[in-house]
Amino acid sequence: MEYTPFTPPNRTLMGPGPSDVHPRVLEAMARPTIGHLDPAFVGLMDEIKALLQYAFQTENRLTMPVSGPGTAGMETGVVNLLEPGDTAIVCHNGVFGRRITAMAERAGAEVVVVEDPWGRAVDPEKVEAALKQHPEAKMLAFVHAETSTGVLSDAETLAALAHEYDCLTLVDTVTSFGGVPLHVDAWGLDVVYTGTQKCLSCVPGLSPITFGERAVEVVQQRTTPVQSWFLDTGLVMAYWGDGAQRSYHHTAPINALYALHEALLMLRKEGLEHAWARHRRLHEALKVGLEVLGLQFIVPEAERTPQLNAVSVPGGVNEGKVRHRLLREHDLEIGAGLGDLAGRIWRIGLMGYAARRENVLKCVDALGTVLADEGLAVDAQGALDAVQSALATPAEA
Amino acid sequence: MEYTPFTPPNRTLMGPGPSDVHPRVLEAMARPTIGHLDPAFVGLMDEIKALLQYAFQTENRLTMPVSGPGTAGMETGVVNLLEPGDTAIVCHNGVFGRRITAMAERAGAEVVVVEDPWGRAVDPEKVEAALKQHPEAKMLAFVHAETSTGVLSDAETLAALAHEYDCLTLVDTVTSFGGVPLHVDAWGLDVVYTGTQKCLSCVPGLSPITFGERAVEVVQQRTTPVQSWFLDTGLVMAYWGDGAQRSYHHTAPINALYALHEALLMLRKEGLEHAWARHRRLHEALKVGLEVLGLQFIVPEAERTPQLNAVSVPGGVNEGKVRHRLLREHDLEIGAGLGDLAGRIWRIGLMGYAARRENVLKCVDALGTVLADEGLAVDAQGALDAVQSALATPAEA
Repeated sequence: MEYTPFTPPNRTLMGPGPSDVHPRVLEAMARPTIGHLDPAFVGLMDEIKALLQYAFQTENRLTMPVSGPGTAGMETGVVNLLEPGDTAIVCHNGVFGRRITAMAERAGAEVVVVEDPWGRAVDPEKVEAALKQHPEAKMLAFVHAETSTGVLSDAETLAALAHEYDCLTLVDTVTSFGGVPLHVDAWGLDVVYTGTQKCLSCVPGLSPITFGERAVEVVQQRTTPVQSWFLDTGLVMAYWGDGAQRSYHHTAPINALYALHEALLMLRKEGLEHAWARHRRLHEALKVGLEVLGLQFIVPEAERTPQLNAVSVPGGVNEGKVRHRLLREHDLEIGAGLGDLAGRIWRIGLMGYAARRENVLKCVDALGTVLADEGLAVDAQGALDAVQSALATPAEA
Repeated sequence: MEYTPFTPPNRTLMGPGPSDVHPRVLEAMARPTIGHLDPAFVGLMDEIKALLQYAFQTENRLTMPVSGPGTAGMETGVVNLLEPGDTAIVCHNGVFGRRITAMAERAGAEVVVVEDPWGRAVDPEKVEAALKQHPEAKMLAFVHAETSTGVLSDAETLAALAHEYDCLTLVDTVTSFGGVPLHVDAWGLDVVYTGTQKCLSCVPGLSPITFGERAVEVVQQRTTPVQSWFLDTGLVMAYWGDGAQRSYHHTAPINALYALHEALLMLRKEGLEHAWARHRRLHEALKVGLEVLGLQFIVPEAERTPQLNAVSVPGGVNEGKVRHRLLREHDLEIGAGLGDLAGRIWRIGLMGYAARRENVLKCVDALGTVLADEGLAVDAQGALDAVQSALATPAEA
């Protein structure tokens, strides 16, 4: 077999992630590799930590990128906090809550599930009932913005409840980080992890995480070792911790960290509030376009997260065929449903560098064209007009 | 604080890894990101698997890159093979065997340690004694080329012993892969993992791994779940397995996989035998240069691995100062000692793209210059002459 260098197609990534990566980030990643103990690299690590603290809105000292995808960040949170026999309350309203449960069970914990329908926010009343019923619970885990449904839950309220019952919080912000307001310290979130491939305009592969003081204490008071050596924060912090002396734990993914640094620089330059407002504004424009096309959001308006728009597949339409045509004919990627929603919804992301005007126009144009071609009676031109009109509204309005 | 884009210094990486990354690999990594379920990406995954099979010299179907550094690959091997109560024989002759033990213990296994001195190969007689004494052992783990000492152990002989006693092998080839002969199938190695940042000329961050049929059966017959959800090969293979249907497990590090593909292409083009010969040839040239400088290898000649040269720090020389001067004045990184050998040795890597003529010359020149400047009576010019003469010898000689 003859192998040749890979030339990727030039996609517009409007699925649930990875989203479009900013060209500056790609360029940064291609800079020459240096050693993971090089003094120049150690300086870069300090900047990455400070920039992550800004993006998380925290002063937590234990703030660093895990050297693996968001799933590794999730597991880092779970296995450091939980010991065999601990009780964990885990909120399920989509794929990722279930994943936390699977990990917590493998860590030997007793899991109490708080179930909400897919497409709805986590219900604080149910959470409070579970906290009341399980005063022994050590951890309440929930997903801030559920990537499988496009729902945003009220992290501040849930964290306040948890602390009322002396319970730590583990919060998945993979999709929310950089896209919607997130205030780790002000909301009192204990352990929070995210991914780089969503609203950060960065490549996939790293998982920034932060541990608050209470969480650090709990980890330090463990009576059993963390079951993962690779993800044991006590060991990893010998490398990522403060001070000049950084000792080897594993070889850091140097070039991916160049990319993360550049993406964080850009987020800081734009400013978090502006980034949040941009995601919100472009979501509003996309929303009117999708509505004119007759597509129904699966999430009640008040519970939607702007950067991930989940809509039902219209009756009579071949879900997979539409996605494949968008990809083949328009180089546009949107996402399918996951788990219980497979085959029933599309997930349209507006994340990071993908959250820009031309993408909203391109998406509504391409979807309108393909749906009309598939025989659906859609007002493709009306949808585009509506988007343009929404985009013309001043940002202050 | 004002943050600016990071411009790394242009180092020559001759430590224990990361080693110099080929410019083609850096360029490949900066190509536009696409989705992890994009048909174009799925085709790339198939090529990566086939190229990894070539590089491992195996036909194992379960061959894939773990989405994390070599340490994650090590943990993947350990936690998939071992269940609580299993017995594992682990060979210690450097840092990485100890690390396998730490992971095996966290997986609930009973560990039998076979101890050899740092700087010596694993002794097959001791291994056979341990196998005889522990017929219940499920796994024999050892490091092929110890990154902490530059020792190469005889993987073929150790694997043959293990199978005589019906025991699986877990083999660390992080430093050996691509640099010295490695024949996974011909030698009957069961689970073998490596890293991308050594003899592959690729960036750090991924850990290729391969499981043979016997190992796959053992994993399938487990009675307890793999303790890591992230590293559970049964789950990961839903994404990396054969067939058109690839389902989501975690978001693959797309751009790092572009880099891996390009590096594997280049290795295949050069040919494994040629890559092995190149590492051997340049090691011979470096060796004569270091010897003329009066530096002593810590490993007996027959047990040295050519791509990692560990030499004692001469008496009266400030170890750290020499390394820092090499870095600052010559942009040359060499490695310090790890663990028991910290402060006592230097580790000089000749790995992948770093294994080339100009690097050998540069290293001997820079070391000679700095050592002379530090007051050591060294024949710097003689060392360079010896290297040049060794490099002038035809490859066939």
